Amino acid sequence: MIHTGHLLLANYTISDNITAGEKIKKVWRAPGLCPYGHVPEPGNRSMPKITFLPSNIEIQVLEDENLLKAAMKAGVHVNASCGGAGVCNKCRIFVEDGHVEGERFEDGAWKACSTYPRSDITVRVPVESEMDRRALARPVARRAVSWLDARGQEMKWPLRPAVRKLRVILPEPTTEDSISDLGRIRREIGQGPLQGITLEVDSQVLFKLPGALRTDNWRVTASLMQAARPDARRLIKVEPGDQTGKHLAIAVDIGTTTVSAQLLDLNQNKVMGEVSDYNPQVSYGEDVISRMEFGKRPEGMKILQDKIVDCLNRLIDELCQGESLKEQGLGLITIAANTVMTHFLLGLDTRFLRAQPYVPVATEFPPVRASELGLKVPEHVRIFLAPCVASYVGGDIVAGVVGVGLNHHPELTLFIDIGTNGEIVLGNQDWMACAACSAGPAFEGGGIKYGMRATTGAIEVVHIHPETHEPMVLTIGGKKARGICGSGIISLLAGLFMAGVLDPQGKFRRDLSTPRVREGTDGWEYVVVEAKSTAIGQDIVFTEADVENLIRAKGAMFAGYLTLLESVGMGLEDLERIILAGNFGSYLDLNQAITIGLLPDIPRDRFFFAGNSSLIGARASAVSWPVIQEMQEVAQMMTHFDLSDNPRFMDHYVSCLFLPHTDTGLFPSVKALMDT
Amino acid sequence: MIHTGHLLLANYTISDNITAGEKIKKVWRAPGLCPYGHVPEPGNRSMPKITFLPSNIEIQVLEDENLLKAAMKAGVHVNASCGGAGVCNKCRIFVEDGHVEGERFEDGAWKACSTYPRSDITVRVPVESEMDRRALARPVARRAVSWLDARGQEMKWPLRPAVRKLRVILPEPTTEDSISDLGRIRREIGQGPLQGITLEVDSQVLFKLPGALRTDNWRVTASLMQAARPDARRLIKVEPGDQTGKHLAIAVDIGTTTVSAQLLDLNQNKVMGEVSDYNPQVSYGEDVISRMEFGKRPEGMKILQDKIVDCLNRLIDELCQGESLKEQGLGLITIAANTVMTHFLLGLDTRFLRAQPYVPVATEFPPVRASELGLKVPEHVRIFLAPCVASYVGGDIVAGVVGVGLNHHPELTLFIDIGTNGEIVLGNQDWMACAACSAGPAFEGGGIKYGMRATTGAIEVVHIHPETHEPMVLTIGGKKARGICGSGIISLLAGLFMAGVLDPQGKFRRDLSTPRVREGTDGWEYVVVEAKSTAIGQDIVFTEADVENLIRAKGAMFAGYLTLLESVGMGLEDLERIILAGNFGSYLDLNQAITIGLLPDIPRDRFFFAGNSSLIGARASAVSWPVIQEMQEVAQMMTHFDLSDNPRFMDHYVSCLFLPHTDTGLFPSVKALMDT
Repeated sequence: MIHTGHLLLANYTISDNITAGEKIKKVWRAPGLCPYGHVPEPGNRSMPKITFLPSNIEIQVLEDENLLKAAMKAGVHVNASCGGAGVCNKCRIFVEDGHVEGERFEDGAWKACSTYPRSDITVRVPVESEMDRRALARPVARRAVSWLDARGQEMKWPLRPAVRKLRVILPEPTTEDSISDLGRIRREIGQGPLQGITLEVDSQVLFKLPGALRTDNWRVTASLMQAARPDARRLIKVEPGDQTGKHLAIAVDIGTTTVSAQLLDLNQNKVMGEVSDYNPQVSYGEDVISRMEFGKRPEGMKILQDKIVDCLNRLIDELCQGESLKEQGLGLITIAANTVMTHFLLGLDTRFLRAQPYVPVATEFPPVRASELGLKVPEHVRIFLAPCVASYVGGDIVAGVVGVGLNHHPELTLFIDIGTNGEIVLGNQDWMACAACSAGPAFEGGGIKYGMRATTGAIEVVHIHPETHEPMVLTIGGKKARGICGSGIISLLAGLFMAGVLDPQGKFRRDLSTPRVREGTDGWEYVVVEAKSTAIGQDIVFTEADVENLIRAKGAMFAGYLTLLESVGMGLEDLERIILAGNFGSYLDLNQAITIGLLPDIPRDRFFFAGNSSLIGARASAVSWPVIQEMQEVAQMMTHFDLSDNPRFMDHYVSCLFLPHTDTGLFPSVKALMDT
Repeated sequence: MIHTGHLLLANYTISDNITAGEKIKKVWRAPGLCPYGHVPEPGNRSMPKITFLPSNIEIQVLEDENLLKAAMKAGVHVNASCGGAGVCNKCRIFVEDGHVEGERFEDGAWKACSTYPRSDITVRVPVESEMDRRALARPVARRAVSWLDARGQEMKWPLRPAVRKLRVILPEPTTEDSISDLGRIRREIGQGPLQGITLEVDSQVLFKLPGALRTDNWRVTASLMQAARPDARRLIKVEPGDQTGKHLAIAVDIGTTTVSAQLLDLNQNKVMGEVSDYNPQVSYGEDVISRMEFGKRPEGMKILQDKIVDCLNRLIDELCQGESLKEQGLGLITIAANTVMTHFLLGLDTRFLRAQPYVPVATEFPPVRASELGLKVPEHVRIFLAPCVASYVGGDIVAGVVGVGLNHHPELTLFIDIGTNGEIVLGNQDWMACAACSAGPAFEGGGIKYGMRATTGAIEVVHIHPETHEPMVLTIGGKKARGICGSGIISLLAGLFMAGVLDPQGKFRRDLSTPRVREGTDGWEYVVVEAKSTAIGQDIVFTEADVENLIRAKGAMFAGYLTLLESVGMGLEDLERIILAGNFGSYLDLNQAITIGLLPDIPRDRFFFAGNSSLIGARASAVSWPVIQEMQEVAQMMTHFDLSDNPRFMDHYVSCLFLPHTDTGLFPSVKALMDT
C-alpha cells in the first residue's frame, strides 16, 4: 500500500471558497500541478497572458504552467502523445512575441510541454496540430457549491460543536459545604450557562476528578458533550486549569478507495490541516462487494476493521503531530462513510447487506467511544457517525447532502456522487429521493484495460484531433504515461466520439485511415500512446470492451436520474441545480461528461462542483451540533428507491446504452455539435 | 481469608417475614443453632414445653435445642462457663417430669448443655444456679420491620425492575420494507407497549443483532433498561427466541466486614438464594480508615478493587451455579455499600474522604457496566449503585432507609445501623437528618482484648448471677470458647453492670468476694471462662480497658441520637420508632443494649429489627425501579451532620460516658431495676 498523504500546511477558514476536492488534489500532487480546468489560485505570482494563433484565443496562466497545459486549458489542440513527458516531440509551437524559457527544436519551434512563459506571449500552433476551436469547447469554469449556497455570501456553519469546553472555577470545600467533588462541579455548571440542563456524567470522569480539581486550586476546564436530547449534556472530561484555548476536532471521510481527514480548530472555526490516504482495505477487495465477501472469512471482519482503524490512527497522528495535541485538545471525531465502510469500522456484520432485500444492521449510530474502536486518542473522545439511509446509500451521501446545504434550499436539485459506486439524490428542502445506481468503478478506471488511479503518470486529459484523429495527451505530473485515470477516460470517450472515431453504439469506425484505430488482441481499439512514449513499454490502448463498460456505467447513472425524476412526475428540464460531489467530480470536464451522456444536457450554469462533499459534511458536523441533527433528519427524510428490481429503471437503462442516448433530443447541445 | 458462604436452598418470597439478618445467620451457622432470643421457626417439628422450677417459668423449644439454651431463652440462670462445650460440668439440672436424652451425672443430675427434651418436661435448677427471674428479664421478642411497614399487611415492592425483558416478533424484511435491523426492532418496540418512549441503544447490541434476529425467524427477546429519564429506555440486549422466562438479578450488600448477595427471580419476585462472605479487603485493614491508608500505596487502590471484584465474582458464581444462568438470565446487579466501599469498588480515589472536610469523589453514580469493573457477567449487565450522602453516610444507609420504608411513613423514626462504624438517621417521610457516630468497631469485638467475630467458639450470650457473680456462657456452635463476639460483649457488659460487678463509671468493684474479679496484667478484669474450659488455653477475661472502649462507643452513638434530636428541637420521648439495622442488630438483646445506654430507654414495642436493611434495599431496588428513584430522593433529602467538630455532640458525649448515662432519668426502666 502506498502512503501518499502528507500534511497540508496552509491555514484556511472553514468557509473559504476552495472546495475540499481541490485541497485533496493539492495534497496528492506536487505543488504547481494545478489540475486541468481549475481556476488559477490567487496569489502574488505573475500571470502572463498567452494568445494562441491562428484561433486568436487568449488565456492567462501561471508562470510555472507549460504551454501544452496552457493550450489544453485554452481549448487549443496541440498534438502530444507522451502526456507531457518530453519524449514524443510532437508538441511543436512557434512563439511569435514575448519571452519564454524551455526547450527548442532546430527549426526554431518550441517544445510546448517543456516551455514556460516569462512575459505575455503570442504563440502560433502549426497547421498539423491546430484545429477549429468550435469542436473543442473550452471547459466550463467550475463553481464551488458554496458560492451557490450563500447566494453571494460565504456560507458559515454556526460555531456550536457537539463538545464544548467550559472554564469552571469552584469554591473550595469547607465543613459547611462538603458536597462531593462531582456534586460541586455539577452544581457550578448548573448555576452557569447550563441552567436547567440535564447533566449526565461519564463514569471515567470520576477517576481523575479529585486530582483535576485540586491541581490548579479548584479551577478546571470541563468538556461537555451534547447528549441525544437537546436539553441534556454529558460531562466527558475535567482537566485542571484553563484548557479552553485548545479545542480541536477531526473530520473524516472514509471512502471505499480513499480516506481523508481534516484537523479543525473549533475555537477559530478553521481547518488546520488535511491528509488523505488510500483505504488500506483495498488489499482485500477493490469494491465493497468483494470486501464483504472477504469479511465472511474467519477473522475477515476483524482484519477489515483493524485496517481502517490503523489507517485512521496514522492519519490522526499525522494531523496532530504528536501526542500533546491529541491529549490536550482533541474533543471529538466526526466520520462520514458509506454504509459498508461504516459497518466495517464498527465491526458490524455485513452478510445481510449483500443480498436482497439488502438490510443493514443499523443506519443510525449512537456516538461511539473512539478508544473502544482502537483509536489511539484520549478516552473521552467520541466518534459521531453520519447516519445512513440504506445499504448502498450511506453516511457519505447524507453528509454530502447536508454539507452542500441541499436541505436548506427550495430549488429542485440533483445531487450526484460518482465514486466507486454512483449514488444520486433528488429533491430539495422539503423532500428527497435517493438511489444507488450500480454504476461500477469504470469511471475510476476499474474494468478498463489500461485504467488506473489518478496518480503520477495517469493520462488525465486527452483531446482527439477531429481530422487527423491524433491525440493530445496530458499526464499527471507530466511523466511518461502508465495508464488512464477517470478524467482521462471520459475525455477520451468524449473526444473519440466527437471526433467521429466512435459511433453512437460505441463501436470504432472501421473505415478510418488512421493507424491508431486497429484490431488488437481484445478486438478493436484506439492507440492512445505508443509503447516507446510510455513508462510501461507497451501501447496504451482504449478498447471497444472498455467503451462498452463505460456506456453501461454512464447508462446506469442516467437511467437513475430519469427514474427518480419520473417517480415524482418530473423531467430533466425541471432540474434547477445539479451538484457533482466526490473527488471524481472535481476533475470532470462538464461538456465531455454531457457529451457521453453521463450528465444531463441542461444549461451549464446549473452545475456545481462540491468536491468531497462527504468530508465537507463531516467537517460541518464537527463544527456544528445542529448539523448532526440535520443529518438525522435528512436520513429519515430520504425515500430510498431500490433500482435493482425496478422495471422503469431497466427500461431507461436500455435506452441509455448509446452515446449520448437513444433519444438525442435529450442532448440538444451535443446534437448541435454533432450536426456541425 | 475464610470462606464461610454457601448457598441457601430455601425459596422464600421477597415479602416474607423472615428478615435478611436471620437468613444470614442461617447461612453462617450449622442448622439447629437457632440464635438466642429468636422466635422458634414454624415447622412440623414437635416443640416440647419445658417448665423450669422453682421459678415456674414455661417455654416451648425445639426438640434439638439443649436445655442450657432453653434456660437462657427462658431467662433462667444456670451456671455454665464453657459455653456449652460440655467440659465445665457446671450446668447441672434435675429432670422432675418427662423424658429427656443426654448426659447424666452420678447423682442423677443432667448436664443441661448436652441434654435434649423428648417430651414436655419439668426441670429443677439447683439452688447454686437458680436466681430470681426479675433480674433476668426475658429478651423482648424481636419484630421484623416489615411487620410494621405493612401495618398488618405484608409489604411488597412493586414488580417493576429497571431491566425488562420484552418478547418481540418482527415482520421479515422485504424489498418494500428493507429498513435496517435496528430500525426494525426499534419500530416494533415503539409500536408496542413502549409507545412514545425514547429508545437509546447500546452499540454492543449491534454486533450480535443480525444473527439474533435471524436465528429464530425474527422472534427475539429484547432487554430494555430504564434510562435516567422516566420516559427513556435503553436497548441493552437482543436474544433469539423467547427468553422472557429467565429473568434474574443479583442484589449485593458490600459491608466493610461482610459481603452478602442474593439471587432474585424477577419474574416471580422471589429470592432464589443467598450467600455471604467476609470482605477480603479485611486483609488490608479491619476498618475503612486503615484500608484507605493502604489505598494510598502504589497499586493499593488496585489491590482493594481487585479483592472486592474477586469476592463478587465468587459470590455470583456460587449463586448462579454455572455460566448458563448468568448468560441467559442475569439482567442487572444492584449494590448497596458505604461510601468508602463504593469508592473502592469503582476504583475512585479515597484520599479526600479521609481528612476534613471529608469530600467524596461522588455520591451519585450512573449505572456502570459490570464487565468494565471486571465482573464476569454478560456484557450488557449494569450495576446500579445506591447513592451515598457523605463520606461516612453511604449507600448502605440510604438503601437501608428505603428498604425499611422510612421514607413512606409519618412516624418520627430513629434508624440505627451499628456495624464497623455507627450511622444514624432521624426523620420520617418528610425530612431526614443523618450522621456518622465514629463509634468504632468495639461492638464487633474490635479493641476488645478477647473480642472476635461471630463465628464458632465465640461467646454470644453471658448471664451473670447477681449473688454468686458466676457466669452462664453460651458459645456459637456450643464449642469451647475462643473469644467474645459482639452480642456476647453487650450481654457481658450489661450483666456485669446489673449484677453490680461493674459500677456506673465502668470500674470493677474491688470489694467483691469472687475470684472472677481480679487484677490482671492489663488492670482489673473479670474471668469469663477459665483457661481449662477454653479452646485457647488461657483465661478469657473482660478488662476495664475493654469496658472503657465500649462506654466510649455506646456514648458516641447515644450522643449522636441526642444531637440529631436536639437539632430538630425534639427529645427521646418523641421517638415513635427505632429501627435497628445491620447484622449486629439481629443478635442484639434489646434490654441489655438499653441497660448499657447503647439504645434509648423507650417502650420496647417501639423497637424493630430490620436485619441487613442495606441488602433489603438493594433487593428492593433490583425488583423495583421506583426504589432506585426513591434512593436518589432520600440521598438528596438527608441533611448530613458532621459530628466530628460539633460542640453539642461533644457535650452529650461526655455525659454519655457512664452506665447507662450520667442522667439516669433518661433510663427509667434501668433505674428501676437498679433500685430493686
